[in-house]
Amino acid sequence: MYPVKIFCTRGSEEITSGICERFKNRLREEIRPVGIAVSNVQEFSNENIEVQVENVRGYFVVVVHTQVPPVTNRLIELFALLDAITNARPEDVLLVFPYMPYARSDRKNKPRISVLGGLVPRIISDVIGIQRVILLDPHDSHVKHYFHPTADEISSVYLLASHIEKNIFSKVSKEDCIIVFADAGAAKRFEQFPYLLKLPTAYIDKNRPDDSERPECNKIVGDISGKAAILIDDEILSGNTAIGDAELLKEGGAKNIIMCAPHAILSNKTLSKEDLVRKLENSPIDSFIITDTVPVKEKLALSEKFICISVASLLAEAITRTINNQSLTDLHNYSNVKFYK
Amino acid sequence: MYPVKIFCTRGSEEITSGICERFKNRLREEIRPVGIAVSNVQEFSNENIEVQVENVRGYFVVVVHTQVPPVTNRLIELFALLDAITNARPEDVLLVFPYMPYARSDRKNKPRISVLGGLVPRIISDVIGIQRVILLDPHDSHVKHYFHPTADEISSVYLLASHIEKNIFSKVSKEDCIIVFADAGAAKRFEQFPYLLKLPTAYIDKNRPDDSERPECNKIVGDISGKAAILIDDEILSGNTAIGDAELLKEGGAKNIIMCAPHAILSNKTLSKEDLVRKLENSPIDSFIITDTVPVKEKLALSEKFICISVASLLAEAITRTINNQSLTDLHNYSNVKFYK
Amino acid sequence: MYPVKIFCTRGSEEITSGICERFKNRLREEIRPVGIAVSNVQEFSNENIEVQVENVRGYFVVVVHTQVPPVTNRLIELFALLDAITNARPEDVLLVFPYMPYARSDRKNKPRISVLGGLVPRIISDVIGIQRVILLDPHDSHVKHYFHPTADEISSVYLLASHIEKNIFSKVSKEDCIIVFADAGAAKRFEQFPYLLKLPTAYIDKNRPDDSERPECNKIVGDISGKAAILIDDEILSGNTAIGDAELLKEGGAKNIIMCAPHAILSNKTLSKEDLVRKLENSPIDSFIITDTVPVKEKLALSEKFICISVASLLAEAITRTINNQSLTDLHNYSNVKFYK
Amino acid sequence: MYPVKIFCTRGSEEITSGICERFKNRLREEIRPVGIAVSNVQEFSNENIEVQVENVRGYFVVVVHTQVPPVTNRLIELFALLDAITNARPEDVLLVFPYMPYARSDRKNKPRISVLGGLVPRIISDVIGIQRVILLDPHDSHVKHYFHPTADEISSVYLLASHIEKNIFSKVSKEDCIIVFADAGAAKRFEQFPYLLKLPTAYIDKNRPDDSERPECNKIVGDISGKAAILIDDEILSGNTAIGDAELLKEGGAKNIIMCAPHAILSNKTLSKEDLVRKLENSPIDSFIITDTVPVKEKLALSEKFICISVASLLAEAITRTINNQSLTDLHNYSNVKFYK
Amino acid sequence: MYPVKIFCTRGSEEITSGICERFKNRLREEIRPVGIAVSNVQEFSNENIEVQVENVRGYFVVVVHTQVPPVTNRLIELFALLDAITNARPEDVLLVFPYMPYARSDRKNKPRISVLGGLVPRIISDVIGIQRVILLDPHDSHVKHYFHPTADEISSVYLLASHIEKNIFSKVSKEDCIIVFADAGAAKRFEQFPYLLKLPTAYIDKNRPDDSERPECNKIVGDISGKAAILIDDEILSGNTAIGDAELLKEGGAKNIIMCAPHAILSNKTLSKEDLVRKLENSPIDSFIITDTVPVKEKLALSEKFICISVASLLAEAITRTINNQSLTDLHNYSNVKFYK
Amino acid sequence: MYPVKIFCTRGSEEITSGICERFKNRLREEIRPVGIAVSNVQEFSNENIEVQVENVRGYFVVVVHTQVPPVTNRLIELFALLDAITNARPEDVLLVFPYMPYARSDRKNKPRISVLGGLVPRIISDVIGIQRVILLDPHDSHVKHYFHPTADEISSVYLLASHIEKNIFSKVSKEDCIIVFADAGAAKRFEQFPYLLKLPTAYIDKNRPDDSERPECNKIVGDISGKAAILIDDEILSGNTAIGDAELLKEGGAKNIIMCAPHAILSNKTLSKEDLVRKLENSPIDSFIITDTVPVKEKLALSEKFICISVASLLAEAITRTINNQSLTDLHNYSNVKFYK
Repeated sequence: MYPVKIFCTRGSEEITSGICERFKNRLREEIRPVGIAVSNVQEFSNENIEVQVENVRGYFVVVVHTQVPPVTNRLIELFALLDAITNARPEDVLLVFPYMPYARSDRKNKPRISVLGGLVPRIISDVIGIQRVILLDPHDSHVKHYFHPTADEISSVYLLASHIEKNIFSKVSKEDCIIVFADAGAAKRFEQFPYLLKLPTAYIDKNRPDDSERPECNKIVGDISGKAAILIDDEILSGNTAIGDAELLKEGGAKNIIMCAPHAILSNKTLSKEDLVRKLENSPIDSFIITDTVPVKEKLALSEKFICISVASLLAEAITRTINNQSLTDLHNYSNVKFYK
Repeated sequence: MYPVKIFCTRGSEEITSGICERFKNRLREEIRPVGIAVSNVQEFSNENIEVQVENVRGYFVVVVHTQVPPVTNRLIELFALLDAITNARPEDVLLVFPYMPYARSDRKNKPRISVLGGLVPRIISDVIGIQRVILLDPHDSHVKHYFHPTADEISSVYLLASHIEKNIFSKVSKEDCIIVFADAGAAKRFEQFPYLLKLPTAYIDKNRPDDSERPECNKIVGDISGKAAILIDDEILSGNTAIGDAELLKEGGAKNIIMCAPHAILSNKTLSKEDLVRKLENSPIDSFIITDTVPVKEKLALSEKFICISVASLLAEAITRTINNQSLTDLHNYSNVKFYK
Repeated sequence: MYPVKIFCTRGSEEITSGICERFKNRLREEIRPVGIAVSNVQEFSNENIEVQVENVRGYFVVVVHTQVPPVTNRLIELFALLDAITNARPEDVLLVFPYMPYARSDRKNKPRISVLGGLVPRIISDVIGIQRVILLDPHDSHVKHYFHPTADEISSVYLLASHIEKNIFSKVSKEDCIIVFADAGAAKRFEQFPYLLKLPTAYIDKNRPDDSERPECNKIVGDISGKAAILIDDEILSGNTAIGDAELLKEGGAKNIIMCAPHAILSNKTLSKEDLVRKLENSPIDSFIITDTVPVKEKLALSEKFICISVASLLAEAITRTINNQSLTDLHNYSNVKFYK
Repeated sequence: MYPVKIFCTRGSEEITSGICERFKNRLREEIRPVGIAVSNVQEFSNENIEVQVENVRGYFVVVVHTQVPPVTNRLIELFALLDAITNARPEDVLLVFPYMPYARSDRKNKPRISVLGGLVPRIISDVIGIQRVILLDPHDSHVKHYFHPTADEISSVYLLASHIEKNIFSKVSKEDCIIVFADAGAAKRFEQFPYLLKLPTAYIDKNRPDDSERPECNKIVGDISGKAAILIDDEILSGNTAIGDAELLKEGGAKNIIMCAPHAILSNKTLSKEDLVRKLENSPIDSFIITDTVPVKEKLALSEKFICISVASLLAEAITRTINNQSLTDLHNYSNVKFYK
Repeated sequence: MYPVKIFCTRGSEEITSGICERFKNRLREEIRPVGIAVSNVQEFSNENIEVQVENVRGYFVVVVHTQVPPVTNRLIELFALLDAITNARPEDVLLVFPYMPYARSDRKNKPRISVLGGLVPRIISDVIGIQRVILLDPHDSHVKHYFHPTADEISSVYLLASHIEKNIFSKVSKEDCIIVFADAGAAKRFEQFPYLLKLPTAYIDKNRPDDSERPECNKIVGDISGKAAILIDDEILSGNTAIGDAELLKEGGAKNIIMCAPHAILSNKTLSKEDLVRKLENSPIDSFIITDTVPVKEKLALSEKFICISVASLLAEAITRTINNQSLTDLHNYSNVKFYK
Repeated sequence: MYPVKIFCTRGSEEITSGICERFKNRLREEIRPVGIAVSNVQEFSNENIEVQVENVRGYFVVVVHTQVPPVTNRLIELFALLDAITNARPEDVLLVFPYMPYARSDRKNKPRISVLGGLVPRIISDVIGIQRVILLDPHDSHVKHYFHPTADEISSVYLLASHIEKNIFSKVSKEDCIIVFADAGAAKRFEQFPYLLKLPTAYIDKNRPDDSERPECNKIVGDISGKAAILIDDEILSGNTAIGDAELLKEGGAKNIIMCAPHAILSNKTLSKEDLVRKLENSPIDSFIITDTVPVKEKLALSEKFICISVASLLAEAITRTINNQSLTDLHNYSNVKFYK
């Protein structure tokens, strides 16, 4: 077993520090990293970047990267960091994506478009030669097969369900709750939610024919009237979809709305971060249950509606198991959520 | 432009002959194949097979393969056929999958399992070196990215929707119809259906907690009472799921049930083909709208409940466009369905 | 040194169990597998298969596969097993072929044919990424170079020669014995036999012009009259060739006929296994010296003419040496046959 | 011969339009593009981009990309554009880099650094599969071997030399001129300059030991006193180096200073474009001879010291020759400069 | 169809000129090469070589290389020639090996040896990227599968058999002739010979136990007494084997000995070419039937025992068919030998 | 950590023995090789070679190869040696090039030439699969990026500078010394020399227009009159360049000439080794400071002008660090030269 060094790209320090801390009761002291390893990024006058890393010979190297603005710059920085590391001859490299950039561009759903969510894994696997990758709740599960060997997939769904069970059901009667999937994709992606929580479901029908023609047919499928709606999506991006969905739910008679989504990107071309958070706070959504796969600490400092569940322990557990040659399967067992809560 | 030869593996002759016929008004006579090209399959005493093909030097070769029993033997036969063809030095090769075998095994959704739906594309792309592949309604759209370059995807959804519009709405008032998705996967996969037909939707909730606990909550989400339910799934396999869904719909008050699924595999470990068809005919489902992506002629000869829409013209059109260097995008436009009906 | 797990595909349990047992005096207890590791094969209604393996992280994994009917299904099962294993991240994988399927289809000896004996190694090496392969007496030695790195080749020839020396020469005077090669391929493949046993040779001329034209010229080249003919071939498949050869030898005056072939496939399209064995027993061949590279126990249970030399020790020795980083060269030294007899 | 479509990334329109115009007397009308082909870049709220291209089936596609800010975003856009094009199945693709981004990061000259100038070619060749690349005056000639097959290299040195001969020697006596290389790299890179112009040389010694120790030894090697110094470098980036060199030359007694560099990046972290141009105008350099490999029109609109030689004809000639299967060798012959001036 | 250029490495001019000449009635004038294309080989003081080729853009390039001394230098020259050609962007490249160097080192038949006969094809296919290769009578047929796609194999066996039929049977009664295989490899490799000529066979037993032990058993298997022995091997190298075999045949009572081998390497570490030829002339072999796959004109100028059948027409025919997209299968039909005699 | 075996090709024994000796205080005894491992090279009558190596299973294998005549034969021998080793399954392989053959053919600087300096690395990396390579002072630093992962580069420049500082400055006043670069390439390649030694520089202008036209302008740029010129080049090949440069320096008034070049190839097509050394001794060069990257012991036995600095310690240090997973960066620190002097 080799000593461990953990690197991250700029902007991913928050989650990486959290992981580092959680190593304490997991990795044996002789191999445990004392903190984030040093990688210097130099930006030249021509905007080109160059990454230099500290010595990695003989180390098991972990690299953490999550999608943060400026997204494209950080992605190229990731390529540079991995290039620097692999040519510096470590024993092994594990790349961890709390939120993989470009994961939403994962298939050609329009004619003649680029699919960077497919190209990025091939660059990482086939050109840079990374053999181990962990993905946390990717937009679609197939993306793990774009890496070779297949990336390992872990999920925050157990953490989120556990939180709902412990903290929501104490306030709202479980009998009054219903899972509402934001669209068919979320329904497929998070089909375990109603199963874990033993709740009925409703769907929001994003592709319904336009209202003018059949105004009587509702965009919400399922009976949510008088219910506490737990709205499930994989991410909150610009907030527009979430707010639109919430308004529909309110119109449909929902009493409470609790939005639950692992990835809180919270990025909007026309609003500042502060305005976006304020807009969400002023929306009909009563609370947001999210995780820290992307940095949210600062953004949400002033907000009381946001409950952030950290995935740092989950990631630390997954990395530790990889280093220790233990199975990741246990992480998909709801009764094991205590291991990394 | 090179003359065309079209090959198929054993069991795929039905659809391939149909394609050949439809070439008549599409491919110029000088390059049009007169029929299916000769490939002899020799089976030795040790069960090993060897495929020999006729001369392909200077030809644009099309290979058609669909999943037929014995599935595994036919898949190895496909590898052998492609190996024989590529080493015989054709100008170009286009592989067409009306129904790609192993397309359902397209991701690692259990720990430490094989994913042959990922391995088969890599064998075809990376070892055998096939550069052009067409997939018709694969189980999941991401599988096209397992080929390099990305496979082209076409769909029978426009043919099916057009048939419903022309033949069903004349019998059942459109106002009384509702789309029912067999599960979240079908909802995501065929989200265009309600949009094309301007119909409301309902969902069958396959992951609902078990009945004992919350018996009041219905497995069907959405109001189907008194409606003609158009049940959508991507394939009918053993029939068990379809019949179970139909019984649920009946319990929920559906007046009529029309099942619509592109791929009619109709294969059941414990029933003969005839018994399986009879069982489906005796089910609460009033009619089945399917296509001929797998051979169904013989199976359904005696059945009146099954309406089979041929995809031969669609495939012939897609192949012709590939040969003629024309875009396949038009095939995804509902108003163009007349081109290949 | 990593602990060892040994897997096999269905139908290869006989030889794999034998290997496991022979590990007892070879592998240190801490790393020795207690039995064949668990791999579950699920067959769905659509005949697709899925293999799930037990945890292999941190293990040196050995996979044993031999050609058994249904040959093609088992080959796809092997691909699935290897796919499941490699994506479950073992430390190392060694694939062992007592009899490699499709090894006879090892070159393009007719125009425009498939060569699956060339494609299978490329799938295993280039797509699945297996780096270590052991072949036992492949049909042609070149096939080991279809793997990268080159597969390791071992041979049962020393076991067979040793058996003849000990058990045949005690019954038939060595002076009366002659090696007869079944064809030029066998002569090339087993040219060590006469050298090891210090015996003269004769050849059966399989390509002789047809009899009508030059009836006087004999198909047997060399003088076998009054001799005990030890007929050498690499496998007994349908039995037709063996019996034809034996009849020629009888006509040519051979007193006894002892057939010796490592691989006893014993498979015939038109005869049941029992009838095939009976037919061989009733042939002019006095005894058959074979090995258990393919499962023969059940087939030959009732036969007294068949002497089966087990290769389990040889394979266990070769695997052990690979795990222990010892040379396999010693296995090609006749005087070392005692190590694995 | 296939009809041609020419694409460019955003920011490279200036040079691409120029190339398009120069096609007029070069490419036959039937295959000549009428303008830059359409590629739409969509930027989502999460900053991810997606490129969609018009139909390219049956076309010879040319893609032009030069380094413009924001450099990293444009580079990812290039990958997306190439991904979209290659999966849309053109006949052939030619990528043209007037100034290849990251070309200066072309080797590991410090320990454990990234070398994106090596990674970018591998992404383009090995993952995206581009087979034809043209580089104009890369920072180092070896970078062309990072592509497979080897990229084609062309140079603006003949255009620049020709300009000097025609326009400078008419004002300054050739006898008074001297080539001054900005450093050893420039000396190696542009060793043809003094040969083409038949001028003596001087060197600026960038690695001289620090002044305190040996103050008497001059940083300029060679006699420039009273001369018109033609200062050669491959690019003007932040301007600091150029101005420092010019001051040295003035100290050394140079009468005039003419700076000549193909690539005028003109980018400085601490100065606006306008201030940077003003700073250069106020420097001791009398005039700048540059090309338009990066967009300079707007930047230099108000400046009279900058003489910009367009490389559009040179690129159009090189592209035309590639399309017409003609050798590019003639472009390296000084007497042929008239073909593309 | 593209115009053709044909290149060769130094030492292969003889056969290449012959091929060129035979193009005259085969290739249409517009595309026919007028002679061997120019490739200059520069040898520097450090013995490094550099090859420069004339323009190949838009050409179908044929490269001919046969094994000639200095073998290793010529092989590296071939790599250099192919590297120069592929980076100069021809339309297509066909590599033709009348005698492939290192073809005899085609498998690992001793422990831990190099197998350059396996490495050379991988360099040519995988690194240099040559897609079309023709092999004439390789030492073992499997070597063609070391190329990807599989190389095409042609044979001089029909030319040789035809010569024997026409020229030998007129002198020696066919009834008195017998084919003698030099070893088991030759027997396997040339098993068609007795079939084509309808002759009986005998074998020379190269692995027989040493004479002291069983002096009575003959090294020749089969009855050759009083016969005209047509001794078949794939090459004559140092001559020692051939002469040894001939002496055995004489001892065995052979009346005449005619040696027939496609490849006349005629190279001996301890004898000059002249002495080697003289030694062969003085041997008991009455005549040698060989081909010109390696240059023999000069070597055999003075010899009357050597009959050289040119393969130039056969190669020209095979190249022409490849260029014209015609099958090579007809070249394996004995009745078609007239096409290239 | 694995025990070490060190191999070399024929002709590289001198430097390899030196390395072996220097392991003594570096590698722990348990893993230290006792001498050069055995690899037998067999040369057959057809000039083909075959290499056989001793057992390497479980070993960390080091292979040393330097350019020695016959260069091409030794290069093919290297490929054979590496092929034999990699197929014999060592734990790890490190290839060390004191002087990489074909390193000067590192780019396409003329149209349509071969670039074997680019092909050789790809054969070693991509076909043979070597992952670790060390280059000592390659002709151009970019060549290390032709290997994947990037090769490690080390330099003798610190040894040479240290020697000059200790041994030359004691004889010639440092104030009187000047570095003279043999050409622009050497200036770029060895720009550290004047920096390390704190000396001024001059340049020899190899591309100056021919003398007839501007006879007054000097080929030497910089003032060398009365100076001790330390002439720097990367190698001394045929000696012609060195002597020409020296004559220029003498004409320019240099008092002493000390030539310093790491690689002393000393090979001339028209002179014997002895005559070449004599010619250099009789030249105006006062002394030569070289290293033993190529074998020089015998060549220079009689010469007193040559001072040979051994790089054996430097190489032993670099190899040891690689085996011990220590950084090579320290070897690029002038103050650490004591570690390997």
